[in-house]
Amino acid sequence: MIKDLFAPRSVAIIGASRNPAKVGHTILRNAVKSGYKGRIYPINPKAKEILGIRCYKTILDVPDEVDLAVIAVPAPTVLDVAEECGEKGVKYLVVISAGFKEIGGEGVDRERKLIGIGKKYGMRILGPNCLGFIDTYTPLNVTFAAAMPRKGRIAFISQSGALITAILDWSIRRGIGFSKIISLGNKADLDETDFIQALGQDENTNVILLYIESIGNGFKFIEAARKVSAEKPIIVVKGGTTEAGAKAAMSHTGAMAGSFTSYSVAFKKSGILLASTLDELFDYALAFSNQPIPASNNIAIVTNAGGPGIITADLSVKHGLRLSSFNINTINKLRSKLPPAAAIYNPVDVLGDARADRYEFAIKTVLSDENVSGLIAILTPQAMTEPLETAKAILRAHSMYPNKPITAAFIGGETVEKAAKLLIENGIPCFDLPERAVIAMKGLCMYRKYLDSLEKEPERIVRFYDVDLARARRIIEKVREEGRKVLLEVEAKELIRAYGIPTPLTVLVRTEDEAVEAANKIGYPVVLKVSSPQILHKTDIGGVVLNINSDREVREAFRTILNRVRKYVPRAVLYGITVQKMVPRGREVIIGVSKDPTFGYLIMFGSGGIYANLFRDVTFRLTPVTLGEVKEMLRETKAYAILKGIRGEPPADISSVINVILRVNQLIQDIPEIVEMDINPLFVYEEGEGCLALDVKIVIS
Amino acid sequence: MIKDLFAPRSVAIIGASRNPAKVGHTILRNAVKSGYKGRIYPINPKAKEILGIRCYKTILDVPDEVDLAVIAVPAPTVLDVAEECGEKGVKYLVVISAGFKEIGGEGVDRERKLIGIGKKYGMRILGPNCLGFIDTYTPLNVTFAAAMPRKGRIAFISQSGALITAILDWSIRRGIGFSKIISLGNKADLDETDFIQALGQDENTNVILLYIESIGNGFKFIEAARKVSAEKPIIVVKGGTTEAGAKAAMSHTGAMAGSFTSYSVAFKKSGILLASTLDELFDYALAFSNQPIPASNNIAIVTNAGGPGIITADLSVKHGLRLSSFNINTINKLRSKLPPAAAIYNPVDVLGDARADRYEFAIKTVLSDENVSGLIAILTPQAMTEPLETAKAILRAHSMYPNKPITAAFIGGETVEKAAKLLIENGIPCFDLPERAVIAMKGLCMYRKYLDSLEKEPERIVRFYDVDLARARRIIEKVREEGRKVLLEVEAKELIRAYGIPTPLTVLVRTEDEAVEAANKIGYPVVLKVSSPQILHKTDIGGVVLNINSDREVREAFRTILNRVRKYVPRAVLYGITVQKMVPRGREVIIGVSKDPTFGYLIMFGSGGIYANLFRDVTFRLTPVTLGEVKEMLRETKAYAILKGIRGEPPADISSVINVILRVNQLIQDIPEIVEMDINPLFVYEEGEGCLALDVKIVIS
Repeated sequence: MIKDLFAPRSVAIIGASRNPAKVGHTILRNAVKSGYKGRIYPINPKAKEILGIRCYKTILDVPDEVDLAVIAVPAPTVLDVAEECGEKGVKYLVVISAGFKEIGGEGVDRERKLIGIGKKYGMRILGPNCLGFIDTYTPLNVTFAAAMPRKGRIAFISQSGALITAILDWSIRRGIGFSKIISLGNKADLDETDFIQALGQDENTNVILLYIESIGNGFKFIEAARKVSAEKPIIVVKGGTTEAGAKAAMSHTGAMAGSFTSYSVAFKKSGILLASTLDELFDYALAFSNQPIPASNNIAIVTNAGGPGIITADLSVKHGLRLSSFNINTINKLRSKLPPAAAIYNPVDVLGDARADRYEFAIKTVLSDENVSGLIAILTPQAMTEPLETAKAILRAHSMYPNKPITAAFIGGETVEKAAKLLIENGIPCFDLPERAVIAMKGLCMYRKYLDSLEKEPERIVRFYDVDLARARRIIEKVREEGRKVLLEVEAKELIRAYGIPTPLTVLVRTEDEAVEAANKIGYPVVLKVSSPQILHKTDIGGVVLNINSDREVREAFRTILNRVRKYVPRAVLYGITVQKMVPRGREVIIGVSKDPTFGYLIMFGSGGIYANLFRDVTFRLTPVTLGEVKEMLRETKAYAILKGIRGEPPADISSVINVILRVNQLIQDIPEIVEMDINPLFVYEEGEGCLALDVKIVIS
Repeated sequence: MIKDLFAPRSVAIIGASRNPAKVGHTILRNAVKSGYKGRIYPINPKAKEILGIRCYKTILDVPDEVDLAVIAVPAPTVLDVAEECGEKGVKYLVVISAGFKEIGGEGVDRERKLIGIGKKYGMRILGPNCLGFIDTYTPLNVTFAAAMPRKGRIAFISQSGALITAILDWSIRRGIGFSKIISLGNKADLDETDFIQALGQDENTNVILLYIESIGNGFKFIEAARKVSAEKPIIVVKGGTTEAGAKAAMSHTGAMAGSFTSYSVAFKKSGILLASTLDELFDYALAFSNQPIPASNNIAIVTNAGGPGIITADLSVKHGLRLSSFNINTINKLRSKLPPAAAIYNPVDVLGDARADRYEFAIKTVLSDENVSGLIAILTPQAMTEPLETAKAILRAHSMYPNKPITAAFIGGETVEKAAKLLIENGIPCFDLPERAVIAMKGLCMYRKYLDSLEKEPERIVRFYDVDLARARRIIEKVREEGRKVLLEVEAKELIRAYGIPTPLTVLVRTEDEAVEAANKIGYPVVLKVSSPQILHKTDIGGVVLNINSDREVREAFRTILNRVRKYVPRAVLYGITVQKMVPRGREVIIGVSKDPTFGYLIMFGSGGIYANLFRDVTFRLTPVTLGEVKEMLRETKAYAILKGIRGEPPADISSVINVILRVNQLIQDIPEIVEMDINPLFVYEEGEGCLALDVKIVIS
C-alpha cells in the first residue's frame, strides 16, 4: 500500500550534509523538526554525525530496517545509491536529485535505469527531480522547503516544485492548513493517479488539490479520479491551457477540440473541479476543507450594507448560484423584527447600524428556511458594527444549521481582522472582498451538482448488432494499402453506411459519361462534388454544384468543377467526381470524432453546416459514451433548441441523431485506426423522418 | 468651481457633538485630526467648546466667512440649518443626515425643499444621506469614517457609503493611497458627473474609481466621462448588473439589451473601464496610479519557476494579452548568459537557483526589446532566491525603461513580504498570486486600446436627404390616434420605406378575394402573413405561409392562417392578412433599436433570422452612431464573417447593411416616439445586389 510511504517506521536521508546551504542538510533538518516519531538515519560517507544524529557511510551500514530512503546526492551517483537501497530492502525511494529526463540525453537513460532498479527490488519511487513530500499527521517533512505547513484537511499534489515552495509560504500567512503535500517531479514511477487513489483513502484529507501540466495514463487517471471524487472533491489547476497545436488538425472536430478540451472533458467525466486560477483553487479548498456540501445552489445573502450586498448578488448570479426565494414565514419574521428600512428579500440588508444580535437574528432566520441551502455573509465595518461578535453569531448559526455551508466576506482591514481570523480558525472561509466568498460557495455547489449526477443509475453502453464490421474493415484496409490517410467521400460514406448511419446514394465517377450514367441511376436532381484527398473542404474552392436536373447540366457541372480545381488547386490529386442524390435541406448538425494522445477518443456534437466553426456551438465527451451522456450532450448545445423547433417549427427527429452518435461511438471503438472524423452536415428531418449524413470526412492513422 | 469644495478656507460642522459616540463628534474629530489648515467652527447650541475648539450656537453667530458647512443634525432640522447656511453665504453644503428621498414620503418632499434652498442661495450640495468626503492633499476629512487613508493618486467616488468605510479600512492594510474619497449619497445636487469633471482637472489624481448603482443624466455623464478619460483612466464597478426587467420587452432587441447592456455600452463609449469585481477595480487602480500606459499589449513574462510561469502565460492569453516574440538579439543575449536549462522564449524562466543578478539581466534584456511593451515579473521563494534584491533589480530595470509598465507577483508569505512592500511603495503593483498581476497589466492595455481609438479623426454623423419625414410622421400619428403602440407590418414597412430602407412589396387585405387581387398585382410567388398587434412573432403560431404560386393556393393559405389564429390565439385582434412578394433567401442579419431611460437609444446589429435570440451574436452602440462605429459593430459580430462569405461563398452586399443601419439611426433621431424596433431578418444578397427588410416590428410610446 502506497499509504505506507507517508508513515514509514524509519527514514534514511542519503546525501545528508553538514553544510546548512545544502539541500541534503535542509531535508534532514526538516525531517527532524517536523516531529517525526520514527528513526532517522543520515547517510554521509564523510560525517560522523549531523545535527546530533549519528551518520552512516552507506545505507547498507544501517543496523535496522529502513522503510523510506530520501536520495539527495548528485545525479551520477543516484543509481548506485538506489541499488544499495534495493539491497537493503527499502520500500520507498524519494529521489530529490535532478539530472534525469528533464535534461534529456543521458538523463533520459539514467531515469530509465532508475525505474529498472525500482522494479527489480519492488521499490516504489517518488520523483526524481522533486521537492519531496510532507505529511502533517505522521508528522514527516522530507522536502527542502523552507517551512512546515499547519495541519489541515487539504492535500496538495503538484507537478511544479517551485509552486509548492511558494504556496507553502503563502498559505502560512493565510492560515491555511494541509494534510499532505506531494511534489511529483518527473513521475518516473508514482504519479498523480497513485496519489489520488491514496488520498482518497486518507482519513485526514477532505479535499485534494492538484497542479498538473500533463497526465501520463489518461484512462487510469479517469478511473481513479471518478472513484475518489464520488467520496471527496478533487480540484485541479491545469498548467498549459493555451491552444497552439490544434491548428494542424484536418477536421472541424480536430480543430475545435485542442488539447485543453480533452483535459476539461476528462476532468468533467471524473467529477474533478477545474479552477482557472490559484486564487480559485484555494477558495474552493477552504470551502471544502470544513464546510458541508449544500443541498442545492439556492443561497441567501445577508449583509449590513446595500452596495456590497448588490455586488455579491450580481457575482452570485454571474457564477451560477441562485438567490433563494424565501418562504412567507421567513419574510414575515424578518419584517417583524428588522427595521422598516431593512431589505427583507434576498439579499437581506440588516442596515449599517446593525449590531451582532440583529445580524444573528437575520442569518438564523434565513438559514431556517428550507429554500435556503447556504449562506454568504457580508460585513462592512461601520460605526455600530461589532465584527467579532458578528463572527461569533455566524459560528452559532453554523452550529445550529451544520448542513448548510456558510462563506463570508468581512470587507476591511484591521477592524475586521480578528473576526475574520476567528471564522477561518473555526472552518468558515472568510475573505476580504465579496467575490472570493461567492467563488467558494460556487465550488461547493458545483460539487453538489456532480454528486447529484451520480445518483442516477450508471448506464450501459448501447451496442448495435446490425453493423457490418467486415465491410468497414475492408474499406480501411484498402485505403491503408494505397498509403492514404484520408478516405474518399464514397469510401467514408460506405463505411458509415456499414455502421447503419444513413447517407444519400453517392457514386464516384471519372468521366462525363460516367457522371450522366450515375445521375440517371440515382435519379434527378443530383449534386456533383469534387473528390480529392487534398481537398477536404470542397465548398471552399467551389467544388460542389447543387440541384442538377438534367444530363446536360451534369456535363456542365462536371466541367465547371474540373476547371475550378485546375484553377485553385492545380496540384491536387483528383480521384474523380462524386454524383450524389440531391436531398431536401434539413436542420444541420455536426457529429465528429478526434483522438487525443492522453485520453483517447473525443466525440463531438453541435450546430453544423458551414457555420459550425463560426459559432462553436459544440460539446465534447470522452468515449465510450452512454445513452445518458449523449442526451446530455444534445441538451448542452443550442443545436438542441434548433432540433426541438424554434418559434413554430415542428420538432426534428432527435432520436435519429442520438442513434447516429451512438453508432459513431461504436464505429470508433471497433476501428481504432480512425483518428479524425466529421459528419457535417447531418441533415435532420422532422420527427419520424430520420436524418442523412450529407458529407463525411474520415482520417486514419 | 466645484474644486473649491475640496479646499475650503473654513469649515463649519453643524451638529458637532461632545458625545464621542455621535456622528457629529466623529466628523469634527476627523476634520481636526486630518491636519486641516483652515478654520474649523463647531456649531452646537448647547456646547461652549468641543475638543478644545470654540463652539457657536448657530452658523450665523460665526464671526468670519464660512466656505463649507457639514450638516449632521436630525433630518427634521436640516432645512432650517441649511437656510441659515444660505443666509451666511456658505458656498458648499455636505449633508450627512439621512431621512430624505431614501425613506420615501416626507423624505422626498424634504429633499426637494433642500434642493430649493441650495438653488436659492447658489449653494452646491453633496448628499444628503452621505458619508462626506476626504481630500488627502488639502488635507481635510469631513466623514465619519474610522480612518484617514494614505496619500495617493487614486480618487474614489462611491454611491455606497458603507463601501467607502470598508474599502478605507481594507486599503490601509494593503498600502493603497487615495487623493480624494467622495460619498455621493442621494445625489440631490452634485453627482458622479460633477466629480468626474472636477477630478479630471485634479493634478493629484491619476485614476478615478467609481462605484455606481445608477446614473442620473446619461448624456451629461457620457460627455464628461469622454473628455476626462482621454486624459486619465476612469474605472467603474456597476452595482446591480443582474437582468430581470428585460423580460417584458416586446422586440428581440429589447429582450437582448437589458439595462446592463446600456451601461456597458455607455461606459465603452466614454472610455471607461468596467471592472467586474472590487478586486479587479483595485488591481487596475494600483497599476494606473504609478505605471505608464504600454505602447501595445505585447508583454513579456519573466519567472524563476516553470509552473507559475505557465500559469501566468495561460492567464495572460485568456485575458487578451499577447506574449511578445522576442527579436533575435534578445534571444541570443538570453541564450548566451542564462544557464542551458533556462527557457529563453517568452515566458523566460531563469530557473529556481537564480539570484537577483540573473533575474535582473533577464528583465533588462527583455525590456530592451522593442517587441516588448510591458513586463510581468513572477518570483517564487526558493533556496537561492533573493526576494529583496530581486525587487531592487526590478526597480532599477523600471527606471531604465520608464515607459514600459511592470506588474509583479511574488508568490509567498513572509519570505517575500518585504520585497513586495518595497515594490508597492515604489509604484510597482505587486501581488501574492499571478492572476492579479495579469489583471493589472490587462487594465493598462485596455486603456491603451481606448487611447489608440481616439487617435482616429472624430467622424461626423451621416445624414440622408432622400427621406420622407412627413410621410413617416403621418404613419405614426395615425397609429397614435388609434391608441395603438405596435405598428402593423404594412405600416412599419411603409415607415422604413419612407426612410429609404428597401423592403418587399406588401399589401394588407381583409378577405380572400382581396388577397387574390393583391397577389396578382404583386406577382407570384407571394407570402401570406397574419397581421395582428397581439401577434408579434408570427412564425410561432404558424401565421406565415411561404411560396404561394396560384390564386387557389392564396385562398388555401388565407384559410389556414385564419384557422391557426382562431385555434392558438383566439383573443387576438385581427387586422387582416398581409400579402407580400416572395423574395429569394439572403444571408440573415438583424438590426434593432431599443430605448434606455438613462442613455437613450441603443442600436443593435447581429446574426438574424429565427436564431437571433439563440446565438445572441449581437452588438450594441448608443446613438447617434458614426460610420466608423457602424463598421466596428459589423466587425464585432460573427454575422460579419457570414456576410464576407464563409468557405467559398461570395461576399454579401455589406455596404447596403451599413446603409440600413445609418438610416435606422437617422429614423430614430427624427421620430423619438419609437421605443423599440426590429428589422429581422434583413436578407442580404450578393455584393451590389442590396438587401431587403423581410419583417419589421416597431413599437411606439
